Amino acid sequence: MNFLGNHLLSVDQLTRDDIAEVTQVARRLTPVARREKTTRVLEGAVLASLFLEASTRTRLSFGTAFSRLGGSVHETVGLTFSSMAKGESIADTARVISGYADIMTVRHPEAGSVAQFAHASLVPVINAGDGAAEHPTQALLDIYTIEEEFAARDKEIDGAHVLFVGDLKYGRTVHSLMKLLSLFDNMTFTLLAPELLGMPDSIVEFAENHGHKVICYHRLPRELDTVDVIYTTRIQRERLQGEQIEGYSEDFHVNRKLVERIGGANTVIMHPLPRDATLGSNDLSTDLDTDPRLAIFRQTDRGIPIRMALFSLILGVADSIESTFQDARWYRPPNRGIRSSTAD
Amino acid sequence: MNFLGNHLLSVDQLTRDDIAEVTQVARRLTPVARREKTTRVLEGAVLASLFLEASTRTRLSFGTAFSRLGGSVHETVGLTFSSMAKGESIADTARVISGYADIMTVRHPEAGSVAQFAHASLVPVINAGDGAAEHPTQALLDIYTIEEEFAARDKEIDGAHVLFVGDLKYGRTVHSLMKLLSLFDNMTFTLLAPELLGMPDSIVEFAENHGHKVICYHRLPRELDTVDVIYTTRIQRERLQGEQIEGYSEDFHVNRKLVERIGGANTVIMHPLPRDATLGSNDLSTDLDTDPRLAIFRQTDRGIPIRMALFSLILGVADSIESTFQDARWYRPPNRGIRSSTAD
Amino acid sequence: MNFLGNHLLSVDQLTRDDIAEVTQVARRLTPVARREKTTRVLEGAVLASLFLEASTRTRLSFGTAFSRLGGSVHETVGLTFSSMAKGESIADTARVISGYADIMTVRHPEAGSVAQFAHASLVPVINAGDGAAEHPTQALLDIYTIEEEFAARDKEIDGAHVLFVGDLKYGRTVHSLMKLLSLFDNMTFTLLAPELLGMPDSIVEFAENHGHKVICYHRLPRELDTVDVIYTTRIQRERLQGEQIEGYSEDFHVNRKLVERIGGANTVIMHPLPRDATLGSNDLSTDLDTDPRLAIFRQTDRGIPIRMALFSLILGVADSIESTFQDARWYRPPNRGIRSSTAD
Repeated sequence: MNFLGNHLLSVDQLTRDDIAEVTQVARRLTPVARREKTTRVLEGAVLASLFLEASTRTRLSFGTAFSRLGGSVHETVGLTFSSMAKGESIADTARVISGYADIMTVRHPEAGSVAQFAHASLVPVINAGDGAAEHPTQALLDIYTIEEEFAARDKEIDGAHVLFVGDLKYGRTVHSLMKLLSLFDNMTFTLLAPELLGMPDSIVEFAENHGHKVICYHRLPRELDTVDVIYTTRIQRERLQGEQIEGYSEDFHVNRKLVERIGGANTVIMHPLPRDATLGSNDLSTDLDTDPRLAIFRQTDRGIPIRMALFSLILGVADSIESTFQDARWYRPPNRGIRSSTAD
Repeated sequence: MNFLGNHLLSVDQLTRDDIAEVTQVARRLTPVARREKTTRVLEGAVLASLFLEASTRTRLSFGTAFSRLGGSVHETVGLTFSSMAKGESIADTARVISGYADIMTVRHPEAGSVAQFAHASLVPVINAGDGAAEHPTQALLDIYTIEEEFAARDKEIDGAHVLFVGDLKYGRTVHSLMKLLSLFDNMTFTLLAPELLGMPDSIVEFAENHGHKVICYHRLPRELDTVDVIYTTRIQRERLQGEQIEGYSEDFHVNRKLVERIGGANTVIMHPLPRDATLGSNDLSTDLDTDPRLAIFRQTDRGIPIRMALFSLILGVADSIESTFQDARWYRPPNRGIRSSTAD
Repeated sequence: MNFLGNHLLSVDQLTRDDIAEVTQVARRLTPVARREKTTRVLEGAVLASLFLEASTRTRLSFGTAFSRLGGSVHETVGLTFSSMAKGESIADTARVISGYADIMTVRHPEAGSVAQFAHASLVPVINAGDGAAEHPTQALLDIYTIEEEFAARDKEIDGAHVLFVGDLKYGRTVHSLMKLLSLFDNMTFTLLAPELLGMPDSIVEFAENHGHKVICYHRLPRELDTVDVIYTTRIQRERLQGEQIEGYSEDFHVNRKLVERIGGANTVIMHPLPRDATLGSNDLSTDLDTDPRLAIFRQTDRGIPIRMALFSLILGVADSIESTFQDARWYRPPNRGIRSSTAD
């Protein structure tokens, strides 16, 4: 796709070259994400961030990314979205807000609503998640994470074996990510999900049509080839529709024991977060927290350079953005998260 | 009024010269509103935006206007206004916040509360709507819209025929606007409202005392002179007090058919927004959305230059503000809303 | 303590020298707090302000202080903190947000939670209040206020007589303040509280162990030495656990009559605000509002320079910060709150 001035609504818009373009800009913006450099390249520009469904993490990630480029952020969260409560159509809301802002990030609880929103907007709209449907920026930061983690281990994405574990039905991030990974070559996908929460057929077929191997399990099999990535997810309780599921059974509990059984020295463990720490949820275990293979926090850190890259590409300031860098002047702790595989 | 350092609480403070001063500054700020130029004239200044009643549109309009002048915006919405929940008086709240900020925009559900607020504040307060009473900045952007739309049609406001349709009792924007229009010469106002929702006598008398012609209807009359402006409003359900009204009857439904009957080629159709898209509301029809006479989105777009103008006048930076303009560096879509009647 | 890069969680971290360091930087930042000067020293830096319990005043005070230093502020209030609602641990939330921001201010309804938060954060955390436990920045601005008010009266804190009135059990600000004042020499503390709302023994012992005189009353005594400071508090209804208290009895009503009885010409009257204006609350009376000894608004104004000072020290930009000052260009009212005892 041509990013300049366009909406980013779905991973379906993206080619492998597009992914490479985004991750390359993200890599160039790492000094800003690491707060070694500052830039005011978007000074005067306004982001309207509309979260019709609350999501603190994603909202803050978009917002701080825009701030670090020098822009101003204006947010609206959840029920305070008063004009819609007064019966306003999505089209009217979108047109009005697009008259105030230069770009919008929109989350909406219903699939397809963000596309409707974009249709009526005068300015580019980035989908920040619409129901169980799409979350393209999460998929991009996931791809970037795999790329960076693999690079640090002298590996490439082509030919990798990825295990998806958990709620593969409502977990939109795994839908978007599996589609993007299908643009690479010669992948193997192993899917481990409760029977009621399996990966939609359309996604499985998409991967198979691209020539990849897909294997589905409802229980952890006795034998499993070493996987390169374990991608696990939280039960999306807020999206369950009558399914009788409280947490995962032990079969879906990714912990040290399971990783020892199916992971290798170079396996990367990922999770879109938040992970559910409630007793009995059997979400990703904290017993892996000191394991260097656990990439979940490096993953969330990488949301900043990826979202900065998307803003820069869509608003046309990515070229020679380095010329706007200045040294950051305040104290930054030595260990401050994200680092580029190539830096340091 | 002298804008410098003063509160803007009511349209009663404004003369025709004041209106002209505001719209002239707004016109000069159009390049910033259109994002052709940026300015940092208010860098370091702080707006405290207190919406004790939610209003996404108005809050974002004030906030982005202040951001585009280079200032910082701090907002508080609705029930999160915790100190008042703890029994704090309006006077104390106002005095405290005015110690943090350089200017405040305040919306409050009760008529008169914003004036109380202003009384205790150390810094200027702009009324962003107080109950069914006042909404002066909306009235100013409405006047600016009529002026700009008329200018594009080689007309002036003096002598115009304005039709107000809908809830004229609780729709505070029509109260403020009719008062401002009464400062012009030789106006004709036709008022079309359900019996329970008629224009308050005080406003009608105000217009009549200024020598204007006012005609009231509860049903659309068979014959009506061509009107220059059709100003329609949403039923303010949140303010109804026992009146049995769900939506408007067909009589108050401004749609293509009605406009064909009473509008001319140069009639301007306005609405303060949001318009109610709920079935049976009979609010302004979407069948006019592609009609060039529909000015509702140009109207909301003009909220930005008007509010920038007010901030600039009250904070004393309007003079030679053009000397602070810089070229915007990011991508802006060719069709990005507001344009000055004189520009392009 | 060494402020650079460190958390500020409790007044227990502070020595008398630390207090002096903070108030000296606050004094140097007064021209910015008074909006005579602007600075962009933190341009590019991000504050994440997480108020898991709403507090408009404190949130705005931290936020505007950070803005006036040139940084960007991103806030999350109360129940919109969605990831925790999805079962996320405090540690995960803290680690994730600390990957986005350069510093955090955190309020939490439970004692000790902010320390947990800080433990998992990569960046410095400032405690903005945790339950009934701590509120160190309020204590620092209180000390600063006493220092400034006394300086204007040619007095020093050593040897002062301070009367605390009201809810001394749940009023965390009085806990933190009494501890800080205990670092000074030769203090007298008179404590006047309802029987159920007395000062915790640990605080009383802390003061006594530092060699100060502490006297407790449940009713106003007939005789009381003239006090230098009257510090009164609101009933913390939201923290009462079954205690049958609606408002204070007349004994705890600080008003003109009481001040005439126990105050002198130089007595300073303070309150952390908000004060409860509800009938029967018997909180600090408004009949003192024009009394020059009432310091409550100068007190809240001083939150800005104190919080700017803390941000500057922790982020390492306090040295020669004056070299970054520029003249403010917009209109500021002559009476705009805070002034330094030494200025003007």
